[in-house]
Amino acid sequence: MTLSRKPLKGMRELTPARKRVEDYIIKRLRDAGLAYGFEEYETPVLEPLELFQAKSGNELAVKQSYNFTDKGGRKLIMRPELTPSVARMVAALGELIYPVRWMSFPVCYRYERPQRGRVREFMQFNLDILGVSGLQAELDVFLVLRRIMNSLGAAPGQYSIRYSSRRLASEILGSCGMTEEEMAGAFALIDKKDKIKPDEWEELVRKTIRDERNAETIMEFASCGDPDAPWLCEAAGGTEAYTEIVKFSGMLKDAGITEARFDASVVRGLDYYTGIVFEVMDTGGENRRAICGGGRYDNLVGMFGGQKVTGVGFGLGLLTLELFLKTYDLVPDGISGKHPADIFLAVYSDEERDFAVNLAEKLRDTGVSVEIDISCKNLSKQFKIAGRKLIGYSAVIGPAEVASGRITLKNMTSGTQTECEVSEISRILMDKNLEGESD
Amino acid sequence: MTLSRKPLKGMRELTPARKRVEDYIIKRLRDAGLAYGFEEYETPVLEPLELFQAKSGNELAVKQSYNFTDKGGRKLIMRPELTPSVARMVAALGELIYPVRWMSFPVCYRYERPQRGRVREFMQFNLDILGVSGLQAELDVFLVLRRIMNSLGAAPGQYSIRYSSRRLASEILGSCGMTEEEMAGAFALIDKKDKIKPDEWEELVRKTIRDERNAETIMEFASCGDPDAPWLCEAAGGTEAYTEIVKFSGMLKDAGITEARFDASVVRGLDYYTGIVFEVMDTGGENRRAICGGGRYDNLVGMFGGQKVTGVGFGLGLLTLELFLKTYDLVPDGISGKHPADIFLAVYSDEERDFAVNLAEKLRDTGVSVEIDISCKNLSKQFKIAGRKLIGYSAVIGPAEVASGRITLKNMTSGTQTECEVSEISRILMDKNLEGESD
Repeated sequence: MTLSRKPLKGMRELTPARKRVEDYIIKRLRDAGLAYGFEEYETPVLEPLELFQAKSGNELAVKQSYNFTDKGGRKLIMRPELTPSVARMVAALGELIYPVRWMSFPVCYRYERPQRGRVREFMQFNLDILGVSGLQAELDVFLVLRRIMNSLGAAPGQYSIRYSSRRLASEILGSCGMTEEEMAGAFALIDKKDKIKPDEWEELVRKTIRDERNAETIMEFASCGDPDAPWLCEAAGGTEAYTEIVKFSGMLKDAGITEARFDASVVRGLDYYTGIVFEVMDTGGENRRAICGGGRYDNLVGMFGGQKVTGVGFGLGLLTLELFLKTYDLVPDGISGKHPADIFLAVYSDEERDFAVNLAEKLRDTGVSVEIDISCKNLSKQFKIAGRKLIGYSAVIGPAEVASGRITLKNMTSGTQTECEVSEISRILMDKNLEGESD
Repeated sequence: MTLSRKPLKGMRELTPARKRVEDYIIKRLRDAGLAYGFEEYETPVLEPLELFQAKSGNELAVKQSYNFTDKGGRKLIMRPELTPSVARMVAALGELIYPVRWMSFPVCYRYERPQRGRVREFMQFNLDILGVSGLQAELDVFLVLRRIMNSLGAAPGQYSIRYSSRRLASEILGSCGMTEEEMAGAFALIDKKDKIKPDEWEELVRKTIRDERNAETIMEFASCGDPDAPWLCEAAGGTEAYTEIVKFSGMLKDAGITEARFDASVVRGLDYYTGIVFEVMDTGGENRRAICGGGRYDNLVGMFGGQKVTGVGFGLGLLTLELFLKTYDLVPDGISGKHPADIFLAVYSDEERDFAVNLAEKLRDTGVSVEIDISCKNLSKQFKIAGRKLIGYSAVIGPAEVASGRITLKNMTSGTQTECEVSEISRILMDKNLEGESD
């Protein structure tokens, strides 16, 4: 039987070259979280189906997920997102010290048709603050987002952090007399606003919402791009939700987060958000999927029957972020091709092998990465391997080197050669590495 | 509805404290691989069931796995191990530069009854060399294993790298006239040798193997602990497999890998091994499951219909390794409790918040990890939070600090206080960090 060489459609298969690009991104995400004292944790890929049915809504948990019954008759789901698991974990750990600042890099699964920026198996960066009801939590999360984008070289004009408030939206739609169900429908409509053409969207709203006044309200609200917009001020001024969004807008200004802007059309798809919601978007036209989406959820932890714990957090898709970086040419050249080895040791013959292996081990003890020849081919073939792997330096271990204890370091790019004592190799290579860019 | 707060049985749920211990281990595994020029890659968790049925054998692929049919009618498996996916990926990538040195940290799944060292969702460290048929590849892999154990503080007497040869075993059992099927049965018996009591094992062999001479051969072979053992020399001397194991044994001696020892009872459970097989075992009685198992597989890549590519590699269970480290008290104190933040900034009142946020951002720009208060509670409660989180330093930002630009750094362990300029904080904290242990 000949088996297929391809992974299943939409699955994550990363060659070393692609993995290096992902690692470049992961390091900057993790470092941004660490800068604010976030701690890393992990939850399982496999979860009880009911956890996600209760938390994420049926559409995501059942229709768009990989779910199945295991050999023990349990209904399981491969997590489509992380937040319900975090809430479950926080509910279980009674002795937590709030505010909890947690981050994680889950691989998640959705059974959807793969397209640009959307696959079936994907890594997210999740970051949450739990146990703080005030807006300082949201501010900290926005600071982390800005630091992430900065550290990846994104300029303020290339992306925006768009935010709105679920509470404000509920306030305004509720004051028109909409029921919970009608509101959910209205949120779904608002969520579509930036995904289709303006006139198509208007038509869709008018067709879906029978009550003409309600349709107008939805369209007016969704087009507000400033908390001080007269329509919004008139519609919601004086309500707690409105006061909150005006206050938050001021806090963002004070903290100098110029990348953030109010946009009432941001609602985010998940059922559990209750306050500020936000997303990071490419401001250009290339990438229409949000790089990151998040918000405040007040009722998630309490549903496990313990104390109520409020939270605010986001999920950031590494693939959408990578597409954004590539659009603006922000992935540094040479990362994908960068081989880990600092030096390649070519071995002249079996006679010198023990000496070479021993030398390699000593170099590794000092922190040098050494790839030694194990092909046992002739020297010219060994060098061809080292050259194609783009390893920076090489040296031959032959009878002369064994006898003298001196070796010749060859710079594989420039071709220049440096003769030195075996004991000097490590220092020379480390110096050379410091000259180049470090990651 | 009240949902369960527990993850499913046997699943990986890591609190930050446990994750820090795992990260300590992962860093040392990754660094050991990097020291030899190994590159990291990733393959999907979800794979076609037939890939594992063909490669790992039916027992593992069907009975001990999570497998199901997806919405599109595909028969899928959550990978129980990594090697078949690596072989598939290598077969697909025509342009690889051999020798390929690859490593990965897959999370794998097995539907088995959880017990000490065995869970249903687990992380492995996989490392493979592809495209080298000579024993230098095995030697390099053994060097990596020794470096891993050394870097984790394991002493040579605490573990051993036991190795044998599938080829040698096949040679000896084949020369008795055993069929392929009988040999597979014999391997399964040999694999059980160290898992039950010696007399129980002997009884099992005699009961299972009807032919008395064959039963004797199995018992004699499995008890060989030296390639020079007279019985082994007589039974297999002169065969290629015997010559190979003697040569490899010499190479290990020359390289000074004293932790390695020949043990013919090592066969490893997987169907695809064809040459040297090995495992890392705790030499004490506490941990009976192998920390790591691996071997050479000559026919795995070719089954995808392309060129034949030989490989040698291992899978190492992070959980079994962690249990080993805990048995010998090798997880350094303080790792699990080590909070990422270098300093906690307490905020006197809302008046000083902008100043504090700004200062925190500047410190973060210089590489300092800062947790700022977002609880907006009184100072004594803020300090209580910082103290319970075990953050090393703290400072209050109040009216005096804002006015003078001088702050007081407090060492949270010793209680000593240092007054300094805002611009000096970063340097002082970095110096303090260098004094402590770094990771």
